[in-house]
Amino acid sequence: MTVTPPNSSARFPAGLDRDSLESGEVLAPSFNSDGLVAAVATHAQSGEVLMLAWMNDEALDLTIRTGEAHYYSRSRQELWRKGETSGQVQRVSEMRVDCDQDAIWLKVTPQGDGGACHVGRRSCFYRAVEGGKLVFRD
Amino acid sequence: MTVTPPNSSARFPAGLDRDSLESGEVLAPSFNSDGLVAAVATHAQSGEVLMLAWMNDEALDLTIRTGEAHYYSRSRQELWRKGETSGQVQRVSEMRVDCDQDAIWLKVTPQGDGGACHVGRRSCFYRAVEGGKLVFRD
Repeated sequence: MTVTPPNSSARFPAGLDRDSLESGEVLAPSFNSDGLVAAVATHAQSGEVLMLAWMNDEALDLTIRTGEAHYYSRSRQELWRKGETSGQVQRVSEMRVDCDQDAIWLKVTPQGDGGACHVGRRSCFYRAVEGGKLVFRD
Repeated sequence: MTVTPPNSSARFPAGLDRDSLESGEVLAPSFNSDGLVAAVATHAQSGEVLMLAWMNDEALDLTIRTGEAHYYSRSRQELWRKGETSGQVQRVSEMRVDCDQDAIWLKVTPQGDGGACHVGRRSCFYRAVEGGKLVFRD
């Protein structure tokens, strides 16, 4: 019986040594035990952090190939093309990966109404922690 | 027998309904089954994404109380005061939480050599994904 480790992927190489992972030119994401990497999206123009979500290998592959952000919805347990229903499609102008390749940074331009959050705000991070409570911010 | 859900915390309230979580003024982080929330740190001046790490309730509490970023190291399984050994202490100028309170955004000013990444780069996100490979960027 062949045991497939949880972070293996048909779409990306796995099992690189640390030096190759940190200093190499090969994208070899370190998916966690659920097969996911964290992805942070910032606004390509303002630099504002818009959202933090998750990608499985399919979402990452589709984001690279289409130039539009795809994520994996942990609550719905399915691939999620951002903006599919809301129109808030995210055009990706740059994708980066971090040192140990378990996080992705997308610079995106939101389409539709220009927002990124399901509650109707531009960014999901619309509250600051101040003096022990949350304060709403633009 | 009282069963304590994995996302409960002695330091923060838990179990808020969705409306309170998204629209309220109470910080009630949704820790995952490992007791963690994702935290993204950006540079307070440049806006650049520096790193993505994890916080348990203690790290989050200490970050709020000290104004310096604390994380939880999943590899070492311990609380991690950023900069403890490297000198790259992160002074927090603003902390934000996202809509469903399972992610934190810190705006920080790195001390010491001004970097944030253990490989010696300013940001952990020093490589862009382009044309099927990784390209080093400042």
